[in-house]
Amino acid sequence: MPYRAPVPEYEFLLRHVVGFDRVAATDRFAEASEDTVSAILTEAGKMCEEVMAPLQRNGDLHPARLENGVLRTSPGFAEGWKAIAEGGWIGISAPEEHGGMGLPVTLLTAVNEMMSGACLSLELAPLMSMGQIEALEAHASEALKELYLPKLISGEWSGTMNLTEPQAGSDVGALSSKAVPNGDGTYAISGQKIFISWGDNDFSENVCHLVLARLPDGVAGTKGISLFLVPKYIPDETGKPGVANSLKVVSLEHKMGLHGSPTCVMQYDGARGWLVGAEHGGMAAMFTMMNNARLGVGGQGVGAGEGAYQHALAYAGERKQGRTGGTGTIGEHADVRRMLMTMKAELFASRAILMACAGAIDMATATGEAEWGARAALLTPIAKAWGTESGIHVAETAQQVFGGMGFIEESGAAQYYRDVRVTAIYEGTNGIQAMDLVARKMMDGGEAANRLLDEIEAHAEQARGDFPELAGAVWEAAEELREATDWLNAQKDMNDRFAGAVPYLKAFARVLGGHYHLAAALADKEGARAKLAAFYISRLLPEHAGLLAHARAGAADLYALSLEELAA
Amino acid sequence: MPYRAPVPEYEFLLRHVVGFDRVAATDRFAEASEDTVSAILTEAGKMCEEVMAPLQRNGDLHPARLENGVLRTSPGFAEGWKAIAEGGWIGISAPEEHGGMGLPVTLLTAVNEMMSGACLSLELAPLMSMGQIEALEAHASEALKELYLPKLISGEWSGTMNLTEPQAGSDVGALSSKAVPNGDGTYAISGQKIFISWGDNDFSENVCHLVLARLPDGVAGTKGISLFLVPKYIPDETGKPGVANSLKVVSLEHKMGLHGSPTCVMQYDGARGWLVGAEHGGMAAMFTMMNNARLGVGGQGVGAGEGAYQHALAYAGERKQGRTGGTGTIGEHADVRRMLMTMKAELFASRAILMACAGAIDMATATGEAEWGARAALLTPIAKAWGTESGIHVAETAQQVFGGMGFIEESGAAQYYRDVRVTAIYEGTNGIQAMDLVARKMMDGGEAANRLLDEIEAHAEQARGDFPELAGAVWEAAEELREATDWLNAQKDMNDRFAGAVPYLKAFARVLGGHYHLAAALADKEGARAKLAAFYISRLLPEHAGLLAHARAGAADLYALSLEELAA
Repeated sequence: MPYRAPVPEYEFLLRHVVGFDRVAATDRFAEASEDTVSAILTEAGKMCEEVMAPLQRNGDLHPARLENGVLRTSPGFAEGWKAIAEGGWIGISAPEEHGGMGLPVTLLTAVNEMMSGACLSLELAPLMSMGQIEALEAHASEALKELYLPKLISGEWSGTMNLTEPQAGSDVGALSSKAVPNGDGTYAISGQKIFISWGDNDFSENVCHLVLARLPDGVAGTKGISLFLVPKYIPDETGKPGVANSLKVVSLEHKMGLHGSPTCVMQYDGARGWLVGAEHGGMAAMFTMMNNARLGVGGQGVGAGEGAYQHALAYAGERKQGRTGGTGTIGEHADVRRMLMTMKAELFASRAILMACAGAIDMATATGEAEWGARAALLTPIAKAWGTESGIHVAETAQQVFGGMGFIEESGAAQYYRDVRVTAIYEGTNGIQAMDLVARKMMDGGEAANRLLDEIEAHAEQARGDFPELAGAVWEAAEELREATDWLNAQKDMNDRFAGAVPYLKAFARVLGGHYHLAAALADKEGARAKLAAFYISRLLPEHAGLLAHARAGAADLYALSLEELAA
Repeated sequence: MPYRAPVPEYEFLLRHVVGFDRVAATDRFAEASEDTVSAILTEAGKMCEEVMAPLQRNGDLHPARLENGVLRTSPGFAEGWKAIAEGGWIGISAPEEHGGMGLPVTLLTAVNEMMSGACLSLELAPLMSMGQIEALEAHASEALKELYLPKLISGEWSGTMNLTEPQAGSDVGALSSKAVPNGDGTYAISGQKIFISWGDNDFSENVCHLVLARLPDGVAGTKGISLFLVPKYIPDETGKPGVANSLKVVSLEHKMGLHGSPTCVMQYDGARGWLVGAEHGGMAAMFTMMNNARLGVGGQGVGAGEGAYQHALAYAGERKQGRTGGTGTIGEHADVRRMLMTMKAELFASRAILMACAGAIDMATATGEAEWGARAALLTPIAKAWGTESGIHVAETAQQVFGGMGFIEESGAAQYYRDVRVTAIYEGTNGIQAMDLVARKMMDGGEAANRLLDEIEAHAEQARGDFPELAGAVWEAAEELREATDWLNAQKDMNDRFAGAVPYLKAFARVLGGHYHLAAALADKEGARAKLAAFYISRLLPEHAGLLAHARAGAADLYALSLEELAA
């Protein structure tokens, strides 16, 4: 399955759509000039195309497996990991003092998306390390940072996140893993964790687990949770992996897809761990990890969608069937063309949302301005949920282009569909993202949302001269979204917000998509970008109306039927 | 995975929503009294629950396989087939003179849907036989009927459809299989056929293939195709399976789902076949098979969706997570409840569309009135495409309810999602269905569509007194659909219709869903049905507007980007 990294798409987005020049103009990211960015994207793209893409099928056909307690990864994955590590791609945004490149999260996000398009199951491994690096950087002691960060950034060691337990999924606060002080500054961690992505491998010297557990004096719920760093091998005095810690992979899950990525059940039996952050302050550290990972998972959705799209486009341009003009392929049929255009337009929009979110994170980092932080916080759940939602439906559409072959594994179309499905589930389900959007992210009374809508409307006003219909449609949709936002904010019972959270998030994404497409049209007034924008705004943006009706319906009717009546 | 056949749902639909009393009032179906119908549904439901549902996981975990050319089916499938056959379920609508029950297609459709919910991969086997029975009944010689129909109806023998070839999928006319007269009234059939569902098994005495092939004097394209009955074993003088015919299963496809159903590559090397219908008249016979199968596949989508829904509902009612009221389970969370209500409302609507289509087929059979035939023809592509589309998205939603467990095969949620996906692809992709709707089914200038819309609006008028808002919304939506229908009919370039075919079909289904929900509300004014209708009409029906905007956009913008630009 050949894969072509969408480098030109990123160059266009950064230059014309999401205003990356603002990021590059800051002192913090002064090195991220246009040339540097292009060079980095090109180099990463090459690695994705040449090293990672050939591994995509390996992971599916030869899943990671556990042999007598030893984890064996898919053929070629060790070499893939090495290439990612040696290219410096794990540490793109990591601090330079520890060996990272110190570049904007915008670039990290772009590279992650490209790696996801090339081989999603392998990309999840560095993504886990990246989350750990960021959490340690923000919350760990200097000693821990000195020891772990260089190894994690170089890829000699790898990182994982251990949050979920059988009875504690979305409700992390219900966890029962325990941490007992050893008296020497370390802690004995015990408990079982499930759904641990890349919980082990056979290519990094050490595997470092960030584990949420409760200290003896930790209260029930999230406020009593602490975060611990628990390495597979305890570093010796020289910092090399020493004796094995008291932890093990109990089993691997048999999943619907993403077979190349081992999903582990982990058992900790008094394993030695080091506290990260404050006692009982685990949730704050976890959110650092999670926010990074959420944006990354949004990129996984978009990346897998891109891979699926390219695959379907290639098939459509080769497969001859029925009477058609032009190339004589199915790519000339109106319905196939509609599917191709839809995928292309959706990917552009989702990618722009990712980039806008990443850019806001960078601006917050560089300027310390609260407004950028609020923008990033607002966009993160949308980038995660919509990147994955649209990625799943692009993969579904791509499979449809293949007709009967799409259901046959040999075609590869099915793998994209199976693999990407998990992205709507893990790292906080898309329902959880939507609830985050309408609750936590609206604690400002909708200020951040309204500020973004102001920008969208002002931009639409500027575009009216060139694209009166498109600009008008975007303006109207933004205004309807604003009314729904106000409506949500006026609801005192949070359940009335939750009831419409998912459709609201989707409508928000639709409006953002229209906005970014309009920006693309302005930058390419006579070209393909403007035509794609017209397609999106006339055909896909109108979905926002139905979604907003759903978003504003309130909670009462959801409970009109009891669970018994739902079963009747 | 326990499964409960939705018999009460069918009883309600038949009595209150789709007017089955009209069918039962005809001479042809006078036996189908309310009591008889209930007894039959109950008996079939029992078989589905007790015999078929326990096989669902077997098919997935132990796929059908080919051992030295011999096909071995999944554990228990032979017993399952036997139970289906002995219950008479293959011949529900087959002629009584050959051992069938002669009952309405409405009942057949209901039973097929229930069997699909219990075990989709096994259900596909009788569905293939049913299509063959109908094709033979309509087009075969008396001698063929006498020999084959009783065996097919009793399930001693089974049937398949052989249409697709590697270069001839949606474009059946491109096929290259050949038929040469043997001089004794039989033909020698040669060629390769792919995607043959249940192309062989180890539980029926004989496997009868209906094969499309071209006679030496057959012109190119669909007009030169003939249909042949080609049995695995050639019947001897006593009608028993005799010598093996020159055909074989070359290989089985490795599919994304539906593992219990063997999808065969078939090779015919001068196999002896008997002509069905006229020489070069294969397409007509094929459409008889296909129309039956299309409605059946729509039922597969709804059935699999029902199975997935029940599974998710059971999980939601057990899984404790987070702070909730009521049962203390995730079923009390607004977003989960939204998903449950959505699934319930979607399944009701899709099932009503199936029943309305089946009822129209029965009325056409019983009365011979062209209007009923036109109604059935109009509803068939909608029933197929929407039954499967909504089934897929119900299965996706059900998987989402499971959270992380949904991606783990052990939960069973993933299997529904993987299995049902093919229903949008086979038996004519959903794109093909939509094109059929806007082209062939509009050759009457939209008369059948407008007649149905008249009924929907008149019904909404009647409902205004009790449900002013709901009735108003349905009326408005129907009117907008009418405008879109008129717009489509006014397009001279068929490509302008094809460009919006899929969203048009979806919008049509949404309006039909609103209509049937409104009928349900009228029959249960203070009850759960009315509440579910309010949910559907206020939250899901509004999607029609966005879909209709998409439907009326025309073809030009689809070709605004070349295939090269789509790849750029």
